[in-house]
Amino acid sequence: MTIIKTIQSFSKKNNFDLENKSILVATSGGVDSMVLIDILLQINAISNQKIKKIGIAHCNFSLRGNESDEDEEFIKNYAATNNIPFHSIKFNTKELAAEQQKSIQLIARELRYDFFEKISQENEYNNEYNNEYDFVATAHHLSDSLETSIYHLSKGTGIAGIRGILPKRKVSTNKAQIIRPLLCLTKAEILNYANQNNLTWREDASNQTEKYKRNFIRHQIIPRLKEINPDTEKTFLDTSERLRSMENLLQFHVNQFEKTILVNKDKSKSIQVSEIKNLIEPLLIISEFLKKKGFSYKQTQQIIKQLENSEQEETKTFISKSHVLYTNQKRWLLVNQKENQLNNKNDDEFLIDLTIHFNNSEKYSFKNEEQEITLILKKCDLKEVDFKSEAMYLDLDKLEFPLVLRKWQNGDKFIPLGMKNKKNIGDFLTDLKIPIHQRNFVYVLLSKNEIVWVGIIENNKVTGLRINNNFKLTKSTQNIIKVN
Amino acid sequence: MTIIKTIQSFSKKNNFDLENKSILVATSGGVDSMVLIDILLQINAISNQKIKKIGIAHCNFSLRGNESDEDEEFIKNYAATNNIPFHSIKFNTKELAAEQQKSIQLIARELRYDFFEKISQENEYNNEYNNEYDFVATAHHLSDSLETSIYHLSKGTGIAGIRGILPKRKVSTNKAQIIRPLLCLTKAEILNYANQNNLTWREDASNQTEKYKRNFIRHQIIPRLKEINPDTEKTFLDTSERLRSMENLLQFHVNQFEKTILVNKDKSKSIQVSEIKNLIEPLLIISEFLKKKGFSYKQTQQIIKQLENSEQEETKTFISKSHVLYTNQKRWLLVNQKENQLNNKNDDEFLIDLTIHFNNSEKYSFKNEEQEITLILKKCDLKEVDFKSEAMYLDLDKLEFPLVLRKWQNGDKFIPLGMKNKKNIGDFLTDLKIPIHQRNFVYVLLSKNEIVWVGIIENNKVTGLRINNNFKLTKSTQNIIKVN
Repeated sequence: MTIIKTIQSFSKKNNFDLENKSILVATSGGVDSMVLIDILLQINAISNQKIKKIGIAHCNFSLRGNESDEDEEFIKNYAATNNIPFHSIKFNTKELAAEQQKSIQLIARELRYDFFEKISQENEYNNEYNNEYDFVATAHHLSDSLETSIYHLSKGTGIAGIRGILPKRKVSTNKAQIIRPLLCLTKAEILNYANQNNLTWREDASNQTEKYKRNFIRHQIIPRLKEINPDTEKTFLDTSERLRSMENLLQFHVNQFEKTILVNKDKSKSIQVSEIKNLIEPLLIISEFLKKKGFSYKQTQQIIKQLENSEQEETKTFISKSHVLYTNQKRWLLVNQKENQLNNKNDDEFLIDLTIHFNNSEKYSFKNEEQEITLILKKCDLKEVDFKSEAMYLDLDKLEFPLVLRKWQNGDKFIPLGMKNKKNIGDFLTDLKIPIHQRNFVYVLLSKNEIVWVGIIENNKVTGLRINNNFKLTKSTQNIIKVN
Repeated sequence: MTIIKTIQSFSKKNNFDLENKSILVATSGGVDSMVLIDILLQINAISNQKIKKIGIAHCNFSLRGNESDEDEEFIKNYAATNNIPFHSIKFNTKELAAEQQKSIQLIARELRYDFFEKISQENEYNNEYNNEYDFVATAHHLSDSLETSIYHLSKGTGIAGIRGILPKRKVSTNKAQIIRPLLCLTKAEILNYANQNNLTWREDASNQTEKYKRNFIRHQIIPRLKEINPDTEKTFLDTSERLRSMENLLQFHVNQFEKTILVNKDKSKSIQVSEIKNLIEPLLIISEFLKKKGFSYKQTQQIIKQLENSEQEETKTFISKSHVLYTNQKRWLLVNQKENQLNNKNDDEFLIDLTIHFNNSEKYSFKNEEQEITLILKKCDLKEVDFKSEAMYLDLDKLEFPLVLRKWQNGDKFIPLGMKNKKNIGDFLTDLKIPIHQRNFVYVLLSKNEIVWVGIIENNKVTGLRINNNFKLTKSTQNIIKVN
């Protein structure tokens, strides 16, 4: 049977030889997963390269009412009939998604892989059969892989996007690896196999609609690609392999970069700009490295663009969800934001860290993908203080770094200069007659959790409104910081 | 004008800053090229970064009769009106394509670039204006680039296929480089610019039909990708940039391989297999290297697959249009076939080179993409000769290497063993009553241009029919070669 040989040879080629392995098959009840199980059973029936053990895992996501339960029943019966260990779990997916504020698709994915991981690892799940699984097999096929690639091509992506689905990958700390033995077969071949072997399966109604973008690609785009080349999918098998190799090559360079160029400091990493310039493809390698730190390709483009502008002496700050990167012409500093900071932080929040005496710069530029903000913080002495200017002055020694700059929120309070009690910023803005449309541009600067400065930042023009009375200059002030 | 800034910044980013450069614009008369010229003229009208000189080149391919001539006239008038140097040439494209047995599209492409190269280099073309051109600009745009990428994705390709059209590339030995300033604009933006600026252009009727695959992609596939993401094309600009960087990274490794691992011998290159195994991604790097020697990715897959089969001691031979690669477990040898051999050689022709004492192997396996043939050539001494066996014996010292193995052709003659005069192989096969259907499997082995052996190779079984009388064993024979 040639399809079995194809699977075996594909498995070997991708370093997951099935022989003598324990395989847990993720089974939805759809035709793909039923074909996958049947092929594995066939291997044990007719090939010399026996699989040690086959198990079935099913997640009931309760998304289609009775149908979901019938799916589970169907697979349970199949497992019993074929004497295959069966593991199932039922989730209230919609509730969990709402609770965790995640999309149904995302949460289902997480629950699914989490369950597989547990089964393949924990005794409580598999003590009945008394051994662990080497592989968790999913039924992704070549047409899925091409769809993924085209989806990413349309959405914009690096190489990992267009190389399609990986034949094998590790899931977190799990010993068991996810494998996709059907990635060498097209959907048509799978359907053909199912029909020829009189398999039964459950139709998933959501597959038939064009509700999801995947299905749109499947029904609207791929058939047209096949008009150009009927073997588009098979052809993609090679393309995918070549792109995966490219990805490995790139990863090699990123690893080299991390090993040899990154200097680990206490809580930060330092990079000499001269070293970056020596990289073969700086933008590519750095973008791949910074992607893991949450930065987008667009951000890396901006970061690298700075390298070319050798006259710029200013230190720029780039923010991702998890990291801050300070850059200037000589050195870059990458700082990991602490988890707890992260959780309370939204995308418009910027860290200002003067404790990082980085080029002694006073000018901080903040960039996320939406806007650019420049705030100038300057140490100055008393002689320089000009209360008539637009600048505002704070007692440096009362501040705790890093400061945080963010948009004002309902409930924010501070003691306006000259007052004794805390005031709601909303009321404060009303008093100043700041019009509603401008209130969206009101920012606050925080030291620890206390607001030290309130201002408007609009079209990159900074207008200070008021400082916190607690941070004003006093007779005992030693060091002054000027904000504008 | 923002579109002009976009073009200038794209040009700079891709290392073809237009300022103070002489640019020859390839102009078909279609909207793309008319927009390109207009933008370049606009740059000189409103920007400080002036272009030194703009010229227009037009190829009249005579493919659409009067229309082609009217196109030429249109551009000539445009050039005159705008006081732009104009260079044109007329080709009988269909005749040239027929003569050279090339497709219309291929020959048109060759003629086109050849013409551009001449204009930008030779005095006879540009002495009137007395200077050369730095760049030849073509009007390829972002939508073209995405179309190319999708076309290659459907047809199967390496990274060079899906990375789209290059913003800049060198053409052969030409000093002038091809540049594509419009690669940052979509077709929609180009049409928009043309309408807003009241440009006139000539419609190319062939663009409207779905005659070509490009147009099919343009009209059937890209609109659907844009349903997923309206900015698909702009998004592809980044993807293309990232893939180009990947390509450069790969090229770096190929260059390293060529510099450090390839050992240049007289007319061949030698590679230690152990070195290949040390490459980061052997298949990828070797396939990119061998691609330049005419080998397909499929062939490289087979070649690399051998590395894993460490027990195989046999030398295998892989053939491309320009090279022969001999491989075994220890060493690879890459031989460049001479140009004149090439021209007379078809795909079913194999070289057998015993002068390459490569692993002292006697067994030659030949593989092209269609078939595998194994022929055993063995040096033996007189005692071993067994005329009753199916093997045939030749006088080794009369042979001139490399031998060529190929299918017989009409007109082939040789002197069958025991005869004095040359005989047509057709007649010889008739005498032997070889049935017509089997004659397709008749092969001849040639030393220089003389047929030394005739046999049938079918399903990899070799049946010798007769040797040439001139190469039979005689009393003076010193060295014998056995063929079977």
